[in-house]
Amino acid sequence: MSNPTTLDPSIAARLKRDANGLVCAVVQDDASGDVLMVGWMDDEALHRTLTTGRAWYWSRSRGEYWRKGDTSGHTQHVRSVALDCDGDALLVRVHQVGPACHTGTRTCFEAGGDLGAVVAGRAPGATR
Amino acid sequence: MSNPTTLDPSIAARLKRDANGLVCAVVQDDASGDVLMVGWMDDEALHRTLTTGRAWYWSRSRGEYWRKGDTSGHTQHVRSVALDCDGDALLVRVHQVGPACHTGTRTCFEAGGDLGAVVAGRAPGATR
Repeated sequence: MSNPTTLDPSIAARLKRDANGLVCAVVQDDASGDVLMVGWMDDEALHRTLTTGRAWYWSRSRGEYWRKGDTSGHTQHVRSVALDCDGDALLVRVHQVGPACHTGTRTCFEAGGDLGAVVAGRAPGATR
Repeated sequence: MSNPTTLDPSIAARLKRDANGLVCAVVQDDASGDVLMVGWMDDEALHRTLTTGRAWYWSRSRGEYWRKGDTSGHTQHVRSVALDCDGDALLVRVHQVGPACHTGTRTCFEAGGDLGAVVAGRAPGATR
């Protein structure tokens, strides 16, 4: 992928992109701490996310940029963006308006659901 | 990738793997809610994570399975695993022993650091 971008070169130099030029973006609710979803960003989507106050992603299925909430109204307002130690993942903390998931649940992991992991010393699904 | 696995076929059928047979795993501290790191799992790493009480990953750089903490002592004890709405991301909640990052910071995002996003209506870096 070689979309033109004006991402800060000092940040671009730190990214370790996958074969499609993307890094994964973990999106966390800044107030509750809930992990809302995972999206994907190329350099330009990251640039827009860092400079516009709104979360932008690259849609792998549609092959285009999308600004979260433009269709659904469920906007994400950026509170902070951090890069991980090896440059291949971002943590985007947001104020989420409405549900984050297109299915209508608050998070995409509520939509997919629990996989019933065996938890050492307690029954699966037990509350802590 | 075609590592043999005994992952529950009903779970395997829901996974949407990347070209390398992997899904991304967001790892969250079950107590603090902090996002600790992002790792990668194939079917077998997920199977082991779901059944052994410890977090297993596929190392893309080393081309092998690793059980978090076997070298560092900084083990991850699984509390729950959830799949997202479209099957390409996992949320693994853990009890983390010691720092999650190999650099010694609590999370991998502390290690990489804040990218200075512009936050609408406030100065970059302002606390909320």
